[in-house]
Amino acid sequence: MPTLVIANKTYSSWSLRPWLLMKQLGVAFDEITIPLDQPDTREKVLKHSPAGKVPILIDGDVTVWESISIMEYVGEAYGAPIWPEDRKARAMARSVAAEMHAGFQALRSACPMNLGKKYAQRDRGEAVARDVARFSGIVRDARGLFGAGGPFLLGAFSAADAMYAPLATRLDTYSVPLDATTRSYVDAILSLPAFQEWRSAAMKEAWIVEADEVDEEPIENYRTAA
Amino acid sequence: MPTLVIANKTYSSWSLRPWLLMKQLGVAFDEITIPLDQPDTREKVLKHSPAGKVPILIDGDVTVWESISIMEYVGEAYGAPIWPEDRKARAMARSVAAEMHAGFQALRSACPMNLGKKYAQRDRGEAVARDVARFSGIVRDARGLFGAGGPFLLGAFSAADAMYAPLATRLDTYSVPLDATTRSYVDAILSLPAFQEWRSAAMKEAWIVEADEVDEEPIENYRTAA
Repeated sequence: MPTLVIANKTYSSWSLRPWLLMKQLGVAFDEITIPLDQPDTREKVLKHSPAGKVPILIDGDVTVWESISIMEYVGEAYGAPIWPEDRKARAMARSVAAEMHAGFQALRSACPMNLGKKYAQRDRGEAVARDVARFSGIVRDARGLFGAGGPFLLGAFSAADAMYAPLATRLDTYSVPLDATTRSYVDAILSLPAFQEWRSAAMKEAWIVEADEVDEEPIENYRTAA
Repeated sequence: MPTLVIANKTYSSWSLRPWLLMKQLGVAFDEITIPLDQPDTREKVLKHSPAGKVPILIDGDVTVWESISIMEYVGEAYGAPIWPEDRKARAMARSVAAEMHAGFQALRSACPMNLGKKYAQRDRGEAVARDVARFSGIVRDARGLFGAGGPFLLGAFSAADAMYAPLATRLDTYSVPLDATTRSYVDAILSLPAFQEWRSAAMKEAWIVEADEVDEEPIENYRTAA
């Protein structure tokens, strides 16, 4: 069975992606958690991968890192249907997944993933608004063309949804106003059984990562332990 | 035949990646160039893809964007051997390609791809030095484990090399000091017939993109037209 090395479930957006995909598609794995922002975090991560970043998948003598690479590996090695079969839908799924992998910097920076809190709506600047608009455009385009078979970007759940799941949590956490199509997609992600399992585990974590806590008063604090 | 939409060959690092892969692996394509930084650049790009970025591959009724997604598409649709067959080598190839897709920001920002000039060696800061060290680590690890069959990261040329090709040009353009293994790998990339073809075409471009010209005196100016 492969082992997925991840960080805190409350904060680690990159860890959530392959974890959610594998859980949701039924690929069994063990997990190792390395808490972020501890004196020995970097040393522990480097023991598993020279890139020094989580997530990392270890499968016998194979080591894979970077969420998008782990996903392709899981698709090939475990025959998991991570992408749609239809070539047009598949091309769009891979394109929007890659767009997430390297993009949305303004939104990611202004609104760190934080499952422990909820914040009030507020203006977070033009660059963030552009990222939100592009995300809504992706949801509209993908669901308009390929969404007939289910509530996800390409209808059925795929790696593209796993890639956008942390972004969906951010829009929820920071009370970002959304059009109905985007809101409905965000809710579909947040309702996934695998995401509920992730969130429940996050609620039991006590770690606070200051770098990922914004300087705003939360309207909800979900973690009783923290 | 598919059409690849790219930007200026002198400056567009993202365009170089799929172009080089397809040329080097013998996948025929037409190309459309949209010059960067012109009043109508954005409008022209948006006609081909709602993501608003090059490169874009158009293949009949399929549109693919983001270099890493185009590469996977070319591998599947044209049976091109974009990754090594061996599963360990393949996992590493995909991991380092994905690492490039989302990383090396300091080096990319301080040293824009610019095939038209050469600059003297100078200290470009700690973050850039860390990126260079990580690149050298990747070359050392990949070639140490899988490099026996050729001069590239995984021996034979693969999509991982196409991903790192713009970085190789940057190290050359900005005279960054390199260890022998890294230098030899950079030279293997710069010697590729497909790269030579790209560079020759770049030399004929007259466009200057000010945002990609650093504020240093070049020690060489290769483009007579510019």
